Amino acid sequence: MVKYPTGSVMPLRAAQRQGEKALLKKASFSDRGMTLEQQINESNQYYLDAGIAVVHKKPTPIQIVKVDYPKRSRAVIREAYFRQASTTDYNGVYQGYYLDFEAKETRNKTSFPLKNFHEHQILHLEQCLDQEGICFALIGFMTLERYFVTPASFLIQAWQNWKAAGKSSMTLAEIEANSFEIKSGFWPALPYLEAVDRIIADRKQEHGNK
Amino acid sequence: MVKYPTGSVMPLRAAQRQGEKALLKKASFSDRGMTLEQQINESNQYYLDAGIAVVHKKPTPIQIVKVDYPKRSRAVIREAYFRQASTTDYNGVYQGYYLDFEAKETRNKTSFPLKNFHEHQILHLEQCLDQEGICFALIGFMTLERYFVTPASFLIQAWQNWKAAGKSSMTLAEIEANSFEIKSGFWPALPYLEAVDRIIADRKQEHGNK
Repeated sequence: MVKYPTGSVMPLRAAQRQGEKALLKKASFSDRGMTLEQQINESNQYYLDAGIAVVHKKPTPIQIVKVDYPKRSRAVIREAYFRQASTTDYNGVYQGYYLDFEAKETRNKTSFPLKNFHEHQILHLEQCLDQEGICFALIGFMTLERYFVTPASFLIQAWQNWKAAGKSSMTLAEIEANSFEIKSGFWPALPYLEAVDRIIADRKQEHGNK
Repeated sequence: MVKYPTGSVMPLRAAQRQGEKALLKKASFSDRGMTLEQQINESNQYYLDAGIAVVHKKPTPIQIVKVDYPKRSRAVIREAYFRQASTTDYNGVYQGYYLDFEAKETRNKTSFPLKNFHEHQILHLEQCLDQEGICFALIGFMTLERYFVTPASFLIQAWQNWKAAGKSSMTLAEIEANSFEIKSGFWPALPYLEAVDRIIADRKQEHGNK
């Protein structure tokens, strides 16, 4: 189970934020207009402040071509290009476990198109899985306000099925059957570590409590 | 121990590179003019290709202000600034362990100035250590061609000693006494996982083989 801090041990910053959040309790997250990424970043900040986990979003990789160094002012990048990332967007550590995941949202209501993932992200998840990381996709059906932690093993299987048999999406029913659904909350916005706890528990059972 | 792949199971790409490296066997790394970062990146590529570990350098965080979208051409970033990273440069997963480290080089010969680290890097290492990550600094004395894996616990202690008592550097002798020295090799350039194996072994002993 996720260890929720009690009020007394919660760091000041988290406590202050929680106060702010309380004011928003009547508004749903979609009302607040938060993207999936914003919800995850807020959750990661909560987990970090509370000493529960250390998970960060990786910066966007940029190829820098030209930088100006104005006098008495900080450096300005004047020409740069977006590069394709070689990994997923998020990774970190939780109770000794390596976490690695990619977050994707869709406005679809009945299926998730696999083309939203890139080949290199699938490959990276496979590599991390081989090293015993806890790897998954965090999929948001934004119109439905439903969120799923889909283990990488299932995602990889669906990806291979696409490449081999042309099935280009995962249906909502398939995702429901092979994922842990998480309820969008208020603080943290997306308590995805509850799903991670279940992945860890499943793995321990498979490995005879190793 | 690090599991070195045999020739037969080594991926083609790694095998090809190893062939290329063989040609360079007579040149030392300093002759090749590799920075510490280049040596680590080459080592990470080796570990990745050989299926030994998945460790990547994080991209430099950039604050993007202005982007042009030319017709029939890719987006060009026209104004952006360097931001301070909130984490260390490297992290990844190795046999189920979360690895997190910062690499720093110096031309000094007798000590390493702590001002080369940033407060937020020390804080991040502390946070990851609390989550049972394997955390360290990879320190290169480039003039001496000596490389050390210094566990974060010692680095944090030295940092606190600086803040409390004004001792602004770690002497080479202190680093020798509290680190695992690694020999710059040819392939991988810096076999730092050998030191990680020793940190893991020490930890298992402390925790009664847990």
